[in-house]
Amino acid sequence: MRLALDPPVDPLAYSFAHRVRVRFAETDAMGIVHHAAYLPYLEEARVSWLRAMGHPYTETRTDGVDFSVVEAWVRYRKPLRFDDVVDVHVAMGARTPTTFQLGYLLRVDDVVCATGVTVHGAVTTAGRPTRLPGWMAEIDLASF
Amino acid sequence: MRLALDPPVDPLAYSFAHRVRVRFAETDAMGIVHHAAYLPYLEEARVSWLRAMGHPYTETRTDGVDFSVVEAWVRYRKPLRFDDVVDVHVAMGARTPTTFQLGYLLRVDDVVCATGVTVHGAVTTAGRPTRLPGWMAEIDLASF
Amino acid sequence: MRLALDPPVDPLAYSFAHRVRVRFAETDAMGIVHHAAYLPYLEEARVSWLRAMGHPYTETRTDGVDFSVVEAWVRYRKPLRFDDVVDVHVAMGARTPTTFQLGYLLRVDDVVCATGVTVHGAVTTAGRPTRLPGWMAEIDLASF
Amino acid sequence: MRLALDPPVDPLAYSFAHRVRVRFAETDAMGIVHHAAYLPYLEEARVSWLRAMGHPYTETRTDGVDFSVVEAWVRYRKPLRFDDVVDVHVAMGARTPTTFQLGYLLRVDDVVCATGVTVHGAVTTAGRPTRLPGWMAEIDLASF
Repeated sequence: MRLALDPPVDPLAYSFAHRVRVRFAETDAMGIVHHAAYLPYLEEARVSWLRAMGHPYTETRTDGVDFSVVEAWVRYRKPLRFDDVVDVHVAMGARTPTTFQLGYLLRVDDVVCATGVTVHGAVTTAGRPTRLPGWMAEIDLASF
Repeated sequence: MRLALDPPVDPLAYSFAHRVRVRFAETDAMGIVHHAAYLPYLEEARVSWLRAMGHPYTETRTDGVDFSVVEAWVRYRKPLRFDDVVDVHVAMGARTPTTFQLGYLLRVDDVVCATGVTVHGAVTTAGRPTRLPGWMAEIDLASF
Repeated sequence: MRLALDPPVDPLAYSFAHRVRVRFAETDAMGIVHHAAYLPYLEEARVSWLRAMGHPYTETRTDGVDFSVVEAWVRYRKPLRFDDVVDVHVAMGARTPTTFQLGYLLRVDDVVCATGVTVHGAVTTAGRPTRLPGWMAEIDLASF
Repeated sequence: MRLALDPPVDPLAYSFAHRVRVRFAETDAMGIVHHAAYLPYLEEARVSWLRAMGHPYTETRTDGVDFSVVEAWVRYRKPLRFDDVVDVHVAMGARTPTTFQLGYLLRVDDVVCATGVTVHGAVTTAGRPTRLPGWMAEIDLASF
């Protein structure tokens, strides 16, 4: 599966949004949020999306399935700053029998700050690839 | 500038290598290094590369130039684990007058564990784009 | 000022509470939240407390005052786990003209998981000690 | 066991030292190292000390023993900054049959920057307290 590098900047293209507030610990000496701190924002939004879909990640893990991260990409457009309230929009953009791709749009007060994509593989607790859960194979895909 | 997504897996394609050892703090409940922890590895290798080139990042920053991160991408191939000693290979793969792109190869005991790319823009302390330092404009580019 | 090491485990002793949810990124290979991840929880609760007091930290910083961390202490009683919803209780326990001490109680579903204390000094942007803001010098102190 | 809050500032009082270099990712918007980033420095020094003692933590964990963190305390004396090379001195300061206490001294160019203490309990993989490994029960204790 090819990593998509153009997730849309229109929030209407996304089915879900999760809000995070920037911690001081996430800033760096440039006075902005450090680039590595975005990946936990995407992860928190992803976990929130799973919960909203009725399939919390804790349950999935209890069932013996993990979603390992195969690729991650972020494009930093405008800096995030301490105490910013960030809307992280999420949508599923592509899928194979054992992997899926999520796109993300990060906005502060309706201003586009970043886009990102993560690619995940369903794996057993032993780390072997396995099929996506049934509910996930039926989600409507966003167009990117 | 287009993000390259195929940095080579041959260490000979890279001009520099930096070694890091995995901290326990960087692992997660899957028992492996968390995917967000790779970006600081790339950053540490980048800073080490600048130092080896005779242009430590602290000096560049004192001169009023920062290298902001515009894009970051990682492909996770084999998990890293606690206490692993990781060789992070670095090379410059592309360049414009104000931006540059670095490729990375992460290996443990000669086994390929991850590849990555970061795109950087030279900016003034006020955050405005500026030309790359002269020495950087003259580096031989790796072929990716 | 002497660091207090016995913040109460009774939530009624605290004037404020802030809720955080554990991120997967904050877990480690022991399957629990890594001990270093607690300090950002305390910080997030502290920032939330400042906001609730009507004096957001962003404003204080704009006014040229930072609250540097002079000491931090945490006692880990029961592990926190991924996706736990943690109530972080906060209270001011001691104060000098230029420093203050906050106590914290962390609970999940009413079970005590950790206690902590941070000591802060008011400093100018140049890093020199300065008097606490007036409103802070008038807060009722909790008894520890 | 009572947490000691006065580890010595004389490096000769410590039996071991480990060197770390500050990452940019560890700084914050005050331009200094974020206070939560010190705990991974202590941990890295602790793991390095175990290795130097001939008992790498990976082996201890393979043997089914973990050293959980029961308490952690840091006193921040002088800020650490990006690219600082930090000597983290380590010594064991107290011990019971199932727990031990380590003291730390952090210096940059012989200047004292921080002191810290961590208290650890030996636990089985099931999380139950267990006796310290034999070699650890025989270490000469530092006087604090």
